[in-house]
Amino acid sequence: IAKEVAKLLEMKAQLGGDEGKHKFVLKTPKGTRDYSPKQMVIRERVFNAIITCFRRHGAEVIDTPVFELKETLTGKYGEDSKLIYDLKDQGGELLSLRYDLTVPFARYLAMNKITNIKRYHIAKVYRRDNPAMTRGRYREFYQCDFDIAGQFDPMIPDAECLKIVHEILSDLQLGDFLIKVNDRRILDGMFAVCGVPDSKFRTICSSVDKLDKMPWEEVRSEMVGEKGLSPDAADRIGEYVRLHGGLDLIERLLQDPKLSQSKLAKEGLGDMKLLFEYLTLFGITGKISFDLSLARGLDYYTGVIFEAVLLQQENDHVQEPVSIGSVAGGGRYDGLVGMFDPKGRKVPCVGVSIGIERIFSILEQRVEASEEKIRTTETQVLVASAQKKLLEERLKLISELWDAGIKAEVLYKKNPKLLNQLQYCEDTGIPLVAIVGEQELKDGVVKLRVVATREEVNVRRENLVAEIRMRTRWP
Amino acid sequence: IAKEVAKLLEMKAQLGGDEGKHKFVLKTPKGTRDYSPKQMVIRERVFNAIITCFRRHGAEVIDTPVFELKETLTGKYGEDSKLIYDLKDQGGELLSLRYDLTVPFARYLAMNKITNIKRYHIAKVYRRDNPAMTRGRYREFYQCDFDIAGQFDPMIPDAECLKIVHEILSDLQLGDFLIKVNDRRILDGMFAVCGVPDSKFRTICSSVDKLDKMPWEEVRSEMVGEKGLSPDAADRIGEYVRLHGGLDLIERLLQDPKLSQSKLAKEGLGDMKLLFEYLTLFGITGKISFDLSLARGLDYYTGVIFEAVLLQQENDHVQEPVSIGSVAGGGRYDGLVGMFDPKGRKVPCVGVSIGIERIFSILEQRVEASEEKIRTTETQVLVASAQKKLLEERLKLISELWDAGIKAEVLYKKNPKLLNQLQYCEDTGIPLVAIVGEQELKDGVVKLRVVATREEVNVRRENLVAEIRMRTRWP
Repeated sequence: IAKEVAKLLEMKAQLGGDEGKHKFVLKTPKGTRDYSPKQMVIRERVFNAIITCFRRHGAEVIDTPVFELKETLTGKYGEDSKLIYDLKDQGGELLSLRYDLTVPFARYLAMNKITNIKRYHIAKVYRRDNPAMTRGRYREFYQCDFDIAGQFDPMIPDAECLKIVHEILSDLQLGDFLIKVNDRRILDGMFAVCGVPDSKFRTICSSVDKLDKMPWEEVRSEMVGEKGLSPDAADRIGEYVRLHGGLDLIERLLQDPKLSQSKLAKEGLGDMKLLFEYLTLFGITGKISFDLSLARGLDYYTGVIFEAVLLQQENDHVQEPVSIGSVAGGGRYDGLVGMFDPKGRKVPCVGVSIGIERIFSILEQRVEASEEKIRTTETQVLVASAQKKLLEERLKLISELWDAGIKAEVLYKKNPKLLNQLQYCEDTGIPLVAIVGEQELKDGVVKLRVVATREEVNVRRENLVAEIRMRTRWP
Repeated sequence: IAKEVAKLLEMKAQLGGDEGKHKFVLKTPKGTRDYSPKQMVIRERVFNAIITCFRRHGAEVIDTPVFELKETLTGKYGEDSKLIYDLKDQGGELLSLRYDLTVPFARYLAMNKITNIKRYHIAKVYRRDNPAMTRGRYREFYQCDFDIAGQFDPMIPDAECLKIVHEILSDLQLGDFLIKVNDRRILDGMFAVCGVPDSKFRTICSSVDKLDKMPWEEVRSEMVGEKGLSPDAADRIGEYVRLHGGLDLIERLLQDPKLSQSKLAKEGLGDMKLLFEYLTLFGITGKISFDLSLARGLDYYTGVIFEAVLLQQENDHVQEPVSIGSVAGGGRYDGLVGMFDPKGRKVPCVGVSIGIERIFSILEQRVEASEEKIRTTETQVLVASAQKKLLEERLKLISELWDAGIKAEVLYKKNPKLLNQLQYCEDTGIPLVAIVGEQELKDGVVKLRVVATREEVNVRRENLVAEIRMRTRWP
């Protein structure tokens, strides 16, 4: 049936194309959206804050193609692999749209034999997930990734990643937030001492990952019922995953008679202690929580993992309550590059990924709620005329202004009314109007009008550029 | 066979994924590439020049998804449709990667009932073409589009598009260039008076389009041999397509006894005359050529068409000769939005698309050939220490600097050698080093070293941020 439907749809589409007037479905694909000029302004603000931070930390920037060889992505995402978009086999290589920026980064490092880099990458990724666009979950969405690759002393780059998340979320003024931190080694050690069989580590880990959306009772029954874990083991896990805290908790767990039996857990806890010492130096432990229930889905993490969540704030100026969730995540993946290297050479990596869709939703609603008038252009001056038949003069003048680097517009009409030209400035926020008229041309001047105050001054044509620059300098 | 191969490849890929150490093909997909940090710096320079120009002309910016419903693209590209990348049918909608930014723009206008906008859009597009990467032809490549939609007086927006191409190519200093201009109506009128049957307009047009790569004789034999045009008609076309010039040629053709019989051609020539008058006001006719051999492939053009080519320049400082070709193109497409509108309402549009890949190749080779040292980071200062055991002090200081907005780095080592720290600055172009030591800590100062001059001064810690800012202000 699916095949037949596809065939019919294709035939329908072809018919539509040939006659040009058939009913098209006028929409963007499911889970995607356009950005309007106003939305782009907000998006650019978010990107600017993020890029400024990444650059402040000395990152270079790279770019990779939107699709990769299918086999590049295979075996990297565990259960989530089913969400990868494949391209149709039209002959040639089998391709898939990138699912994140981490795997392409690892492929890039291995391919170019790079063992040492600090880079950021901001680009769209693709997941055939169930979209929930009001909550900022899309099938096409941006990730803003910052990663540090290289063999270094423990926890210094890891601490910097957390500092970066802290800086960006503070900068963007999104309200209160919390960065949860854990370590895959602590999780695995915990599973071991709780009596989870090795073969069940992954699947039990993915149950634990649901604790931010489900109560413990449900997660427990999934572990015991669906996944066949012994009730005792589940209860032991339950004791641990409710724990969260700071240095004191780390110290306590280092003394924990059960957990300290696991070499892996001890290693993880030792590093976690070091991490918290560095975070203390950075002065950011106030918003960091060592949380044993944090698991993170992706297969490739090997050490520290973390996730930043926005905390519900009072909705005083926003009508619809914004659904709050994770806005950044990351961790250490020391094995991924080695999976691509022909000789399996490892390049330790740690990185963070900022998701802008939720952040963007919040800021967009905030702008809507406020009276802020967003300009979508930067035009400094409209070249206008008061009388008819001055199109040529307007074009000559605007050409001079463009060549001098002034941002200028002109209405594309032979004889526009002055009122319409002034209205256009009001509508689009253009601050100045340069008016040419018969008299001004004779006198070698241009009448410069300030839209806000209606003040008008005659400016000698040779001084016009300087005058416009002076009057539109940003404060 | 193809299916079997695909199956086997998939199996192979899965095997590789599961064991993690099988031979991956370490490459990007055919016709695509990564951008290294150095290449990104050059790319950003090109984008900046282009965006600055688009903004100078008062454009807003929009964004659309990388894929569209397949039927959105159907019937828009004529013969080129076979080059569209389709996504695999994984259930749900049938999708294709965008082939250009023009059709998504038209879809956006119709979907949002916008009849009036001036916008730019810079994004990657996808064509399953035969790649020739040394000549800047990729399967994934950027287009930088500027379009004006709306009902306006003739040729004013069209002239602005040409002005924009002129400004950008001048700004980028790519050497000499020429912008060829023609009009679909002149072409169609010419075909009519030369005796080409209506049904053959499109295919003969696509033969004419090859004149920039093939001599007339070959094009003629394609017309007559493959496409069954009468030799007489072909010869008559041959007379016209060798013509190029300026206002004088337009005037001559307006008087041409044959061509003036075509209402369509006369309309086109009349508008061409107007266009050249405006281009004269803009002072750019020196680089514009009205060229009857310019055809352009895409189906959707209805009026003015144009294409900018770089002219071969002396290769004095470049080793490999850069293959020169088209770097921008565009035209008027008054019918495209109507194809999406349920009631067929038309929105006249004209636009230009800048292709950056060739431009990028040229600039990249120029940078390679010159001795220019490109910095890929913006770091102002490295926080270093001369003695051991000062990691904590370095982290405390760098945290202060980051919080003050200073771009700073630190080596991720507990006890790095001073020499290595200085070497890192040399390698990456960091201009300053802030050195902490036991004595400095006691004295409440930081030793600030200028890498270029080796000058060292003690700066009081509370003045450090101001001092760094002062010393790294761009000239």
